[in-house]
Amino acid sequence: MIIQLEPKIDQRTTDELEDAVLAIGYKPVAVNTQDANYLVCVGKREFDIRAIGNLDGVVDIHRVSDDYKLVSRKWKVQPTSIDLGDGVVIAEGLMAIMAGPCSIESEEQIESVVKHLVENDVRIMRGGVYKPRSSPYSFRGLGMDGLKTFYNICKEHGIKIITEVMQVSQVESMYDYIDIYQVGSRNSQNFNLLDALGKVDKPVLIKRGLSGTIDELLQSAEYVFSNGNERLLLCERGIRTYEKAYRNTLDLNAVPLLKEKSHLPVIVDPSHGIGVRKFVESMALAGVMSGADGIIVEVHETPEKAISDGQQTLSFGESAKMIAKIRKTFELRESL
Amino acid sequence: MIIQLEPKIDQRTTDELEDAVLAIGYKPVAVNTQDANYLVCVGKREFDIRAIGNLDGVVDIHRVSDDYKLVSRKWKVQPTSIDLGDGVVIAEGLMAIMAGPCSIESEEQIESVVKHLVENDVRIMRGGVYKPRSSPYSFRGLGMDGLKTFYNICKEHGIKIITEVMQVSQVESMYDYIDIYQVGSRNSQNFNLLDALGKVDKPVLIKRGLSGTIDELLQSAEYVFSNGNERLLLCERGIRTYEKAYRNTLDLNAVPLLKEKSHLPVIVDPSHGIGVRKFVESMALAGVMSGADGIIVEVHETPEKAISDGQQTLSFGESAKMIAKIRKTFELRESL
Amino acid sequence: MIIQLEPKIDQRTTDELEDAVLAIGYKPVAVNTQDANYLVCVGKREFDIRAIGNLDGVVDIHRVSDDYKLVSRKWKVQPTSIDLGDGVVIAEGLMAIMAGPCSIESEEQIESVVKHLVENDVRIMRGGVYKPRSSPYSFRGLGMDGLKTFYNICKEHGIKIITEVMQVSQVESMYDYIDIYQVGSRNSQNFNLLDALGKVDKPVLIKRGLSGTIDELLQSAEYVFSNGNERLLLCERGIRTYEKAYRNTLDLNAVPLLKEKSHLPVIVDPSHGIGVRKFVESMALAGVMSGADGIIVEVHETPEKAISDGQQTLSFGESAKMIAKIRKTFELRESL
Amino acid sequence: MIIQLEPKIDQRTTDELEDAVLAIGYKPVAVNTQDANYLVCVGKREFDIRAIGNLDGVVDIHRVSDDYKLVSRKWKVQPTSIDLGDGVVIAEGLMAIMAGPCSIESEEQIESVVKHLVENDVRIMRGGVYKPRSSPYSFRGLGMDGLKTFYNICKEHGIKIITEVMQVSQVESMYDYIDIYQVGSRNSQNFNLLDALGKVDKPVLIKRGLSGTIDELLQSAEYVFSNGNERLLLCERGIRTYEKAYRNTLDLNAVPLLKEKSHLPVIVDPSHGIGVRKFVESMALAGVMSGADGIIVEVHETPEKAISDGQQTLSFGESAKMIAKIRKTFELRESL
Repeated sequence: MIIQLEPKIDQRTTDELEDAVLAIGYKPVAVNTQDANYLVCVGKREFDIRAIGNLDGVVDIHRVSDDYKLVSRKWKVQPTSIDLGDGVVIAEGLMAIMAGPCSIESEEQIESVVKHLVENDVRIMRGGVYKPRSSPYSFRGLGMDGLKTFYNICKEHGIKIITEVMQVSQVESMYDYIDIYQVGSRNSQNFNLLDALGKVDKPVLIKRGLSGTIDELLQSAEYVFSNGNERLLLCERGIRTYEKAYRNTLDLNAVPLLKEKSHLPVIVDPSHGIGVRKFVESMALAGVMSGADGIIVEVHETPEKAISDGQQTLSFGESAKMIAKIRKTFELRESL
Repeated sequence: MIIQLEPKIDQRTTDELEDAVLAIGYKPVAVNTQDANYLVCVGKREFDIRAIGNLDGVVDIHRVSDDYKLVSRKWKVQPTSIDLGDGVVIAEGLMAIMAGPCSIESEEQIESVVKHLVENDVRIMRGGVYKPRSSPYSFRGLGMDGLKTFYNICKEHGIKIITEVMQVSQVESMYDYIDIYQVGSRNSQNFNLLDALGKVDKPVLIKRGLSGTIDELLQSAEYVFSNGNERLLLCERGIRTYEKAYRNTLDLNAVPLLKEKSHLPVIVDPSHGIGVRKFVESMALAGVMSGADGIIVEVHETPEKAISDGQQTLSFGESAKMIAKIRKTFELRESL
Repeated sequence: MIIQLEPKIDQRTTDELEDAVLAIGYKPVAVNTQDANYLVCVGKREFDIRAIGNLDGVVDIHRVSDDYKLVSRKWKVQPTSIDLGDGVVIAEGLMAIMAGPCSIESEEQIESVVKHLVENDVRIMRGGVYKPRSSPYSFRGLGMDGLKTFYNICKEHGIKIITEVMQVSQVESMYDYIDIYQVGSRNSQNFNLLDALGKVDKPVLIKRGLSGTIDELLQSAEYVFSNGNERLLLCERGIRTYEKAYRNTLDLNAVPLLKEKSHLPVIVDPSHGIGVRKFVESMALAGVMSGADGIIVEVHETPEKAISDGQQTLSFGESAKMIAKIRKTFELRESL
Repeated sequence: MIIQLEPKIDQRTTDELEDAVLAIGYKPVAVNTQDANYLVCVGKREFDIRAIGNLDGVVDIHRVSDDYKLVSRKWKVQPTSIDLGDGVVIAEGLMAIMAGPCSIESEEQIESVVKHLVENDVRIMRGGVYKPRSSPYSFRGLGMDGLKTFYNICKEHGIKIITEVMQVSQVESMYDYIDIYQVGSRNSQNFNLLDALGKVDKPVLIKRGLSGTIDELLQSAEYVFSNGNERLLLCERGIRTYEKAYRNTLDLNAVPLLKEKSHLPVIVDPSHGIGVRKFVESMALAGVMSGADGIIVEVHETPEKAISDGQQTLSFGESAKMIAKIRKTFELRESL
């Protein structure tokens, strides 16, 4: 059960509400986000919801039988829209495209990608400055210096950026230089990181774990939301299966299911989802038709020279063609 | 290596060719299909292909480094087209739609589905008369009587049929009453059944195993082809993963990969692929954009009363809408 | 619910019983095995079991809430013992060892293995004459000729044999030359084959499917049992997972679970379960401690020259050591 | 390639060595642990190892073809032994037993478990004070206060403790109150945490990821080692597969493989590995026979009242019996 509280509720009324919740055998958890105040109430018993709904201080009340609560569409029927400013919005009914290299490598590289994005009217650039790598001896990213350059160049051209945050201490230091925090697959259940991201007011995209379930992804989003941050995006990026013909198994089943279960936008990552350059376009278009609200994809001026993930990265030529097709496919989808 | 032989090659020339193949360290296997005669040569050594290519009796010669040979696109670049007669063709560049109930239940049921298909210009009906069921106490299908009724009603209306064959002895008995044999997931590596289907001249659709790899699916097709039957279709129908939010995980990555590796048509089954009625349409459309040559889907007049698989079966209304969307999506795909 | 019927029950009493079962909303299925006659009753409703138990013709009656019935320990608490004659028995409380090559190759090979078994007091030899192979161009076994030689040599030395049956037509032709039919992983849900094996009176060992669940394995056994054959063994041989460091993932969790759920003996196959020769012994011993009633393992005089599976096959020296350790481990387990 | 350096090597000699490594096309990484100084050299080219081995400053040199280096047994043949003081040692040839509740709940609970451990001569207690939970609304542990109580009570009785560390900032704050840091499955690829744990001098047990590969586990250990901490333990705790009959699939194949690939001790966690109380003992004993150097297991005075994981937690009675059996099984293993 989720109870939305009156904005200026006083402490006594809150206490009385919590007591009423406890009295029906539920555990109330106060959640104060940047947008509103809630009591999330966890429990299993049957009760008459009107008995609570009629109390003082209640704006709205909903039963949510899912294990996750605040990210459930059972409570918030209207889809969440993420406004990044300057007219860049990610939302149901739009098609967000995020493109860029796996790793930020140099000023020249950023500028060449930005030029490509501007030419193709793409408003969000991806690129990693902290890289999770299986081996400690691999390149681990340019860090904060790289991030500042990345952010500044993009800002000049009206491009928003998304980049991976790997640990709690980076949340604050990166804050001034990002538009969207990305939580990578390996950190999808790094609960301390999720807690910390709940305390800032910038959007967070959460990738599904390497072998994460749909429920786990939604629970990870619930961590961020219940710590105060409602601006969340979910990302399907392929799961680990027995099949080794491709890097991961892009699970597009997840898209219509997540859209039904949650009010959060759903982004598809076909680059990691299949991991083979020549098939990325097909999977991007399939992702659009499955119902995605956005596509995030790896592009590089010279993929064969990219420091990481070159085998799944599109050249600018391939990218431009794909972007045009994504838009036509999305247009068809909305018209059907 | 695949050597296509002259149609009227004599025994002596064949023997000489086989000796030449053995001499370079390869094992020749004579394959005589309904369409042509081949020597499939298995081995790993390096050699000068022209030395064999110039011999008497050779029409054409190709290296095929894959473990499967005759189903590889490395050998046969031109896509295989399956002509079912009466203008019903399954091929790259077309969009085959196959629809019908999980199980054939009665004459009335067949007639209602046929009417629905005719109204929507669908030319191929699916429906099981032999049902593989986990439990021996479940309904196992109407058998040959059901098949005859199914076939006869469809024939009257110009509808072709596809139905599952479960064992060797059925191959012959079903022959006069089917247009396409279907090999189900649980029989995807029933090698004796595949051998037997290589000896008839009707098309065979092979479903990927419950947790079958792409390579295993292609090898299963190789079994049928190398026994003499070139008229094959491959079907992605979802794989078994750790995720239990849906019945199976539809692996659309398989579609562009199979299209690249093989010359055979690729069909997507979104009904089994996700197993939840309200999501079937999304996955069908995603399947089209991933590059499929056809969609096979479960429909029933009253899904909630279907003997089996009702939870993933579309009503006629849902089906009609989906079919229209599949066609528009396919049209877009071909125009991109 | 399972109703065991009086041996000489007449038709009228049976009919009355079936009517009584139908009357409480259950579906009765008559099962006549080589040992007894049953009514297996499938349904979900609550009812008073004494109302049926008191009727004429009933020897015994049990509720079985599992989806499988006759193989459940909820019905038959006493473990099933498989007597192969000549003092060779597979049962809880004993440790059956079955060893031999992947493929039967020649008379000499059989004789060398038999000598090794006799020296180590192993009474059951494994060996394939019909081989399921991914590729149609691989060696597929010596067939019936190989089987006859295999059987005759073993019989001379008091050795029982287990070998794989791949299709319905082989059930009868192999009957005179085997002691245990083996159903391989790829045929674990070949329901027609399971039906056919229910109609003969020789023991059947069913391997778990490549990615078969515990429930599916028990349901496959239910197929054989409900067709009339109670003499069944279950085999854990490794499942398909994302991990590629070994051939399969031996799932020893399955052993205590199967032992609890079913009255059938459970055999562990460490050779396929890990697929790496040097680790087979460790996994065999782990299998014993997990509670297995037997171990089936691949041995060959010269594993490096074996036609198939050499990389997971033990030499006679390795095998002799392992067998001694299996017995000591089993002895300890029984003493704990 | 791993070069062990002379303890008192000067900077000039180190520089010359690094130059020599670069000259053969390898990348040298200086690793200074609490025990020794190394150059880990990453590269693929062929070269004459003696050319480097003969240079000044080199104590020892080894080729290591694995992707992980310092944790490989190709370099360090002698198994790593972890001495916790007061005669508590974890090493090959011994059988470490670690037992305790999932969560630390209260002083009384700690004392009852300690008493049980002392009675059964178990020297290491497990227990979580920071709990990774899928849902933000679940109990997340008693934190530092709980840890201090836990540590102090154990210390009084000569019991060492192992507990989970979840984030970088906890590494230092927990330092004075733990004997072994545990990295949980969800943090198995939390690379920043692994880096931080490399900088302290207390042992670290790393659990395999939810669907982590053997190679990923070894690479995670490489992170800690290459940051300076050689005192590492690896833990198999079950992987995520399609099978839902138990919580996880305990992958005992991992044990002999890890023992061969690495010099680090391998611990088996049967509680999480199967997740069902009545089967924990069987899997613990199987783990011993597979070659484990230790068993970690959940016990509680009243499992049915445990805050978390009660369904897989043993009572003291069950635990005492299991511990005795583990020791007898280990004794047998060592005698074989």
